[in-house]
Amino acid sequence: MPADLLLTGGRLVNVLSGEVYPAEVAVLGSRIAGISATSGVYQAQRTLDLGGQFLAPGFIDAHVHIESSLLTPAEFAGAVLPCGTTAVVSDPHEIANVHGLDGIRYMLGASDGLDLRVFVMLSSCVPATDMETSGAALDAAALASLLAEPRVLGIAELMNYPGLIAGAPDMVAKALLGHRARLRLDGHAPLVTGQALQAYAAAGVASDHESVAAAEALEKLRSGMQVLIREGSTAKNLDALLPIVTERNGRFCSFSTDDKQPDDLVHEGHLDHSLRRAIASGLDPLLALRMVTINTARHYGLNDLGAIAPGYLADMVTFADPRDLRVTRTFAGGRLVADSRRLLVPQRSTTPPPRNHVSAPGLSLASFALPATARRARVIEMVPEQIVTRAVTLEVPVSDGYAIADPARDLLKIAVVERHHGTGNTGVGLLKGFGLRAGALASTFAHDSHNIVVIGTSDDEMLLAVQTIVAIGGGLAAVRGGEVLGTLPLPIAGLMSDQPFETVRADMVRLLEIARELGCAHANPYMAMAFLALPVIPELKITDKGLVDVTAFKLVSPFDTTGAAEMPR
Amino acid sequence: MPADLLLTGGRLVNVLSGEVYPAEVAVLGSRIAGISATSGVYQAQRTLDLGGQFLAPGFIDAHVHIESSLLTPAEFAGAVLPCGTTAVVSDPHEIANVHGLDGIRYMLGASDGLDLRVFVMLSSCVPATDMETSGAALDAAALASLLAEPRVLGIAELMNYPGLIAGAPDMVAKALLGHRARLRLDGHAPLVTGQALQAYAAAGVASDHESVAAAEALEKLRSGMQVLIREGSTAKNLDALLPIVTERNGRFCSFSTDDKQPDDLVHEGHLDHSLRRAIASGLDPLLALRMVTINTARHYGLNDLGAIAPGYLADMVTFADPRDLRVTRTFAGGRLVADSRRLLVPQRSTTPPPRNHVSAPGLSLASFALPATARRARVIEMVPEQIVTRAVTLEVPVSDGYAIADPARDLLKIAVVERHHGTGNTGVGLLKGFGLRAGALASTFAHDSHNIVVIGTSDDEMLLAVQTIVAIGGGLAAVRGGEVLGTLPLPIAGLMSDQPFETVRADMVRLLEIARELGCAHANPYMAMAFLALPVIPELKITDKGLVDVTAFKLVSPFDTTGAAEMPR
Repeated sequence: MPADLLLTGGRLVNVLSGEVYPAEVAVLGSRIAGISATSGVYQAQRTLDLGGQFLAPGFIDAHVHIESSLLTPAEFAGAVLPCGTTAVVSDPHEIANVHGLDGIRYMLGASDGLDLRVFVMLSSCVPATDMETSGAALDAAALASLLAEPRVLGIAELMNYPGLIAGAPDMVAKALLGHRARLRLDGHAPLVTGQALQAYAAAGVASDHESVAAAEALEKLRSGMQVLIREGSTAKNLDALLPIVTERNGRFCSFSTDDKQPDDLVHEGHLDHSLRRAIASGLDPLLALRMVTINTARHYGLNDLGAIAPGYLADMVTFADPRDLRVTRTFAGGRLVADSRRLLVPQRSTTPPPRNHVSAPGLSLASFALPATARRARVIEMVPEQIVTRAVTLEVPVSDGYAIADPARDLLKIAVVERHHGTGNTGVGLLKGFGLRAGALASTFAHDSHNIVVIGTSDDEMLLAVQTIVAIGGGLAAVRGGEVLGTLPLPIAGLMSDQPFETVRADMVRLLEIARELGCAHANPYMAMAFLALPVIPELKITDKGLVDVTAFKLVSPFDTTGAAEMPR
Repeated sequence: MPADLLLTGGRLVNVLSGEVYPAEVAVLGSRIAGISATSGVYQAQRTLDLGGQFLAPGFIDAHVHIESSLLTPAEFAGAVLPCGTTAVVSDPHEIANVHGLDGIRYMLGASDGLDLRVFVMLSSCVPATDMETSGAALDAAALASLLAEPRVLGIAELMNYPGLIAGAPDMVAKALLGHRARLRLDGHAPLVTGQALQAYAAAGVASDHESVAAAEALEKLRSGMQVLIREGSTAKNLDALLPIVTERNGRFCSFSTDDKQPDDLVHEGHLDHSLRRAIASGLDPLLALRMVTINTARHYGLNDLGAIAPGYLADMVTFADPRDLRVTRTFAGGRLVADSRRLLVPQRSTTPPPRNHVSAPGLSLASFALPATARRARVIEMVPEQIVTRAVTLEVPVSDGYAIADPARDLLKIAVVERHHGTGNTGVGLLKGFGLRAGALASTFAHDSHNIVVIGTSDDEMLLAVQTIVAIGGGLAAVRGGEVLGTLPLPIAGLMSDQPFETVRADMVRLLEIARELGCAHANPYMAMAFLALPVIPELKITDKGLVDVTAFKLVSPFDTTGAAEMPR
């Protein structure tokens, strides 16, 4: 019988043999039926002449949080398919912190049937700590209920690496869960080296995407971990790590994006951006392509993905020039889904999201009051372009016994308002380095518990910003005086929009302009804000329960009552 | 806590990073606890100084029929562990043809707890054809009952490649069985190329060990199949295939032995022999070592085997010189099991074999009679060093209306006596090229149905040889006149001895001497005989049902009644 589609005139990038040669590829249904170096061997209903372009397997993102795009899985698919990405290994960690298993089930349901293959690693650290109030908690037994899902590939990044290394029972239980199911364990071990790394790897953790230095990455590769070289919107490790990749060890390296914002998806692209940067830096194009195809597929046991070979799923891309790799066509399951970076097949899902809870009962101006119990306060100081912060101790202005913001000195107030369970918890602190000179910004995209984080120049504006967030049912908001300057509603878990990609991007662009007008110089203030609530990244963070000294791993007072003698001036 | 064992003074062969460097390796229980490039980091109960030797992962045979060693799994383990082989991917195809599921269960049971890790692919072609009487038949449903066994890795070599390519329902059912369980399908596609190969690979067949030419192997690699380069007792493909292996594609190549006789295990070794030959031929030692370690482990989804890395099973070997790779020590699960090629830990199993059936009721001299219905007979002509035969048509001596042997012309009689079900089936034919000048040889090791194959210079001697086989309950026998010259009983399925490796080897050596004394010049007449009963290898073979024209795939008369005009003289 004739095939459905015959691709002629292409140069096949065979990532298995490491060769490029002219070949015709016959597709039947969703799979490759056969490949022939000579023409006339296969017949098909339709023939497409690739005009001498290269034909390579579709790209696979080895580690991504789809929620970071602020898009539904369908809209995310629509955004990345034209970039050549045809599969992602995702960790639904953000929505899991909001909705638990229902969140993961939503991501599975909402990605079912898309042209993008969405695989899922089961989020292993929900919540990240007990110093915050998350929407849900997932223990090993809860994760076990999803292990049999066909698109579940293992256990997601085991971020509590100190716990796993120390043999904490809950982390060990989650690791064993993966092992018993013969599935993969993903790692997250920033700066972990030596014996600690050996212990972490000995628990069976088989990948890591947190290396920032070449030596660190090479040590992980030597220790049996797939090195996922991350190039996202915030964390960019490609330049630092690329020097370790060789023809000989390259099979144990992959590319990932981790977190990528809508605007970056438009301006940079997705994995194609990593490929272009790597190849421009001198990496052999075939080696680079293997890092987004066969290497990642084989690591995760996806034995019919990542190559163009008979029986493999017909996920493919074309491009004209490997030295400036611009994807011209994307095929998913044998279907042309994008051409000239334009999506041809709308990506849709009818899976309803879980009911979102964004409430702050009893919230008032008093919620943001910060009674000054000492002259000197512990202040979160942001570090440009980093998600770590510094803990600094400063004298702060006091009015009527309350510490207040001082925008002229770039001293702002920050609060995290619990929004999942109506506890009324509000943690309040002081922040330096955000740069807002007027108004307030608020967001429910706040790692990892995704409460409402708000930063403002006055309590009134902070209250309005949070009220606005509650009113829109979660999302992002900017206010000044009594005026709401802009919002981006994120009704799905307070994390994702229900709007099309382009709408989200336009709204986001406008919100970023507003933030700049308000004086904030961060490239993406909302992304920067999101990490201020993450109490596993040093040094000083804030949750709904209060200020967290991450180094000491405990809640601390916003004021320093230990006496001026211990404080540097 | 201290580790159990610390290996110091070794040079670690890191097959992941492709590097060799001094390192200390700490072992706890059966696994690697940690590795350190500097000493003093790990403490252990016991320390072993490797004195500068190389430390590499234990070797994995990608495809082997243990039965071909004539040894039980335990004795096989004892024979190969000192050679550095610590794991095998086995196909219990021989015993499956005799005992069906009970045979596979026996191999699983008898290999349980050995220091050699025996993985099992489920035999997919039992029986090979319906032109023979096998001991058992296995359909997809039968195989399904063993899929959940932890050591079952997939479906064994799909030898009926014409059937699978044509979409034969039973073959498709077996392929689907493997796919649905996300397990591997092994291939067997000698000389299959072009569209036929594409169709075979498209069914998801992911390996092949039958390539005899470089171009054939490269085409298979390009098509997504792991190329298993076989170097066994009979089939030796290493020299022909090695030229295709490069740094770039080597990850998709592995070594296998397929079938190896006891004597060869002593004189050559096992996978270490392949390594020595490959390295002597110029293959980079690290690349060669990857072909018996990480490449094979990853292909079969054995994610904690094939490398020395934290959390991996501590299966390791040491050797002094990679250019002449002689294994000096073998560690299995952290335990030193062989030193200086001597087994330190006896390999034992108490699993009882299935009850063996070797009977030939009603057998008499008349069973071997060959009434001459025409002047010219179809004769099986052996091809030196090959398992293929030629079909030739010859005038044969006739006495009292019966065709008889003529040893002076190297024309012998051959018969296959059904031995499983007491059917009384006896196929009788004529054979050229075996070389026997007196007596008869018989064996129950007769591919694939393992009936009794007997070759003789007279019917009396053939009868005695078969009676001897029945008397010893299966095995090998040589007779002359009324005298039994020698036997090697194979009471386990008529395939394997219950005796120690050295006894089996000594018996085999003696039987080979006897065969030589009887005039047979084949290196191993019993191995050569075994393939004469295999009706899937061209051109003319014999089963208990009679002579098989393999090219026409049908049973034929031993006599040519089509008339002399069609016969070449």
